Amino acid sequence: MDRKVTIREIARQAGVSTTTVSRVLNDHPYVSDGKRRRVEQAIADLRYRPSQTARHLRGGSSGLLGFLTDDVATTPYAVDIIRGAQDVAWAHRMVLLVADSGGDARFAEAAVDVFRERAVEGIVYAAMYHRPVQLPEGLNGLPTVLANCFLEDRSVPSVAPDEFYGGYHATEAAIKAGHRRIGFINLWEEDERVTPPFPAIYGRLRGYRRALEDQRLDFDDALVRFSIQTARENYRHTQALMAMPQPPTAIFCGNDKIAMNCYSALAELGLRVPADIAVIGFDNITHIAEGLLPKLTTMQLPHYEMGKWAVQYLIDHRGRTMEPLQVALPCPLVARDSV
Amino acid sequence: MDRKVTIREIARQAGVSTTTVSRVLNDHPYVSDGKRRRVEQAIADLRYRPSQTARHLRGGSSGLLGFLTDDVATTPYAVDIIRGAQDVAWAHRMVLLVADSGGDARFAEAAVDVFRERAVEGIVYAAMYHRPVQLPEGLNGLPTVLANCFLEDRSVPSVAPDEFYGGYHATEAAIKAGHRRIGFINLWEEDERVTPPFPAIYGRLRGYRRALEDQRLDFDDALVRFSIQTARENYRHTQALMAMPQPPTAIFCGNDKIAMNCYSALAELGLRVPADIAVIGFDNITHIAEGLLPKLTTMQLPHYEMGKWAVQYLIDHRGRTMEPLQVALPCPLVARDSV
Repeated sequence: MDRKVTIREIARQAGVSTTTVSRVLNDHPYVSDGKRRRVEQAIADLRYRPSQTARHLRGGSSGLLGFLTDDVATTPYAVDIIRGAQDVAWAHRMVLLVADSGGDARFAEAAVDVFRERAVEGIVYAAMYHRPVQLPEGLNGLPTVLANCFLEDRSVPSVAPDEFYGGYHATEAAIKAGHRRIGFINLWEEDERVTPPFPAIYGRLRGYRRALEDQRLDFDDALVRFSIQTARENYRHTQALMAMPQPPTAIFCGNDKIAMNCYSALAELGLRVPADIAVIGFDNITHIAEGLLPKLTTMQLPHYEMGKWAVQYLIDHRGRTMEPLQVALPCPLVARDSV
Repeated sequence: MDRKVTIREIARQAGVSTTTVSRVLNDHPYVSDGKRRRVEQAIADLRYRPSQTARHLRGGSSGLLGFLTDDVATTPYAVDIIRGAQDVAWAHRMVLLVADSGGDARFAEAAVDVFRERAVEGIVYAAMYHRPVQLPEGLNGLPTVLANCFLEDRSVPSVAPDEFYGGYHATEAAIKAGHRRIGFINLWEEDERVTPPFPAIYGRLRGYRRALEDQRLDFDDALVRFSIQTARENYRHTQALMAMPQPPTAIFCGNDKIAMNCYSALAELGLRVPADIAVIGFDNITHIAEGLLPKLTTMQLPHYEMGKWAVQYLIDHRGRTMEPLQVALPCPLVARDSV
């Protein structure tokens, strides 16, 4: 268990020379981007970790990154953002300082102070659902990347889910399975911090409409419902859809909780999933999606990938100006048994 | 927003003099435990954070704690352990370094090396479900507290859920609601790292039996099922219980996922919760428990409390020997609408 990964093993894994590995480790400029990526991937895969002491003494850098979140507790799957951030940080011999403000602005500001005292080299600010944010005071001059959120004026780099993509591909999956009337129980949220349009709500709706359009299917307003996400509302919307003169044969749900309630409402109506009606969720909350019978086909929020992207962007721009890129990552289909 | 909390405000909140607050902040010995606790609570409540620089220069301590987990991703609600740990660390002007090994032993060892390089003052090692663990190499001499896990030889302080308490109080809740025949769909787990008895499985079963005994109810072997936790198995066990000559009128489920499938199986049998049959879960996974209709009565795993306890114990024993206390925290009932 105390066997150490050697540079030779990394070179073999990456398909490059040990000289190249050594150059990457020392941030030598004469390495192609392709090779650098392969070596960094091999370092990540093998969990290689060189002695940091020399590096930090040499570079004078702290090797620390701050990770500030507003609230992990209420949306636990979003913690994959932290995992993704950690994994990239680790591959670059850096460590994350993590602070969860629980939505408390004073705590967030104090955390920024602490991060500064510890000389972090950059900060990832992550929201637990996709929305515009206001940054805490005191970040000026600290390289910052936003994950799962953005500034209204788009002045800071950000990575977020491509909601349009998710809505499009969920709908397309139903169409490809032969469905022509597809109900959509969309989210509805109230959050005084956010002025509409909510990216998830409107982005997915645009995707739904475009997918219908691309397949020359009519958009029917009555098939789209907005649920405030209580179990009872989710039931009610499912029942209302199925009571239509021409009910849908597939229902796209704005999240997996809605899908869970949709399943129950359909069962009470004596309808079987997917034989009588298909259901697609969103979020891929595995406790729910894999726990339901039949297992739920749903869309993956790219939490892990957002965490990775944010730290990679910080590291790629160490000591350089960061363009305020606004990146949207896909929400891929996780096909299970409900379509 | 840049208003700072003053020592005077802390004193007012704690109901002590500013001198006492100052003494607590400086670890002065002449403060009663009661006052110290009140001041620390006020510091936590007000999110007070004094300048650390002076303190760390004076004490020569790093102000860092390491938090090492085996896998947050698969049991997201366990992240509340991190939140609890953070909140106590914060109240003592300390910061958490977080590393998630994803169950990779080599990563865990490397994380310990990093924590040492950063001169952490102690480590919390947290497992994501309650089980015996083996510690990574290299921890010798570093103050360590285990959360949600323990060493077989009980040589390191640990805090874990009181599974017996959970099983007892879940069963008692059903009995108090008038039930006399209570089915129990217990967990069954296979994990090559753990030799039985699994604390959750056997602890809760003991609690279930003791609660029946205390109320002079007979234990019926046929009412207890062990589920490997697939949706289909959970269905099958529910159906089998309800097909008994004398079926139960309440079902205690080993976790909320089992309860979710139990609900569906009961709905298919035309049975209503709780009018026809009561259901109690375990874990309080709020996505499920609050998402089900009716909302699920379940038992709370003390994740947040375990994180708090672990860091508090480390801090209380700074520079002193830690007794290998083995603490079990209660899993309280969260009463909703299913009993």
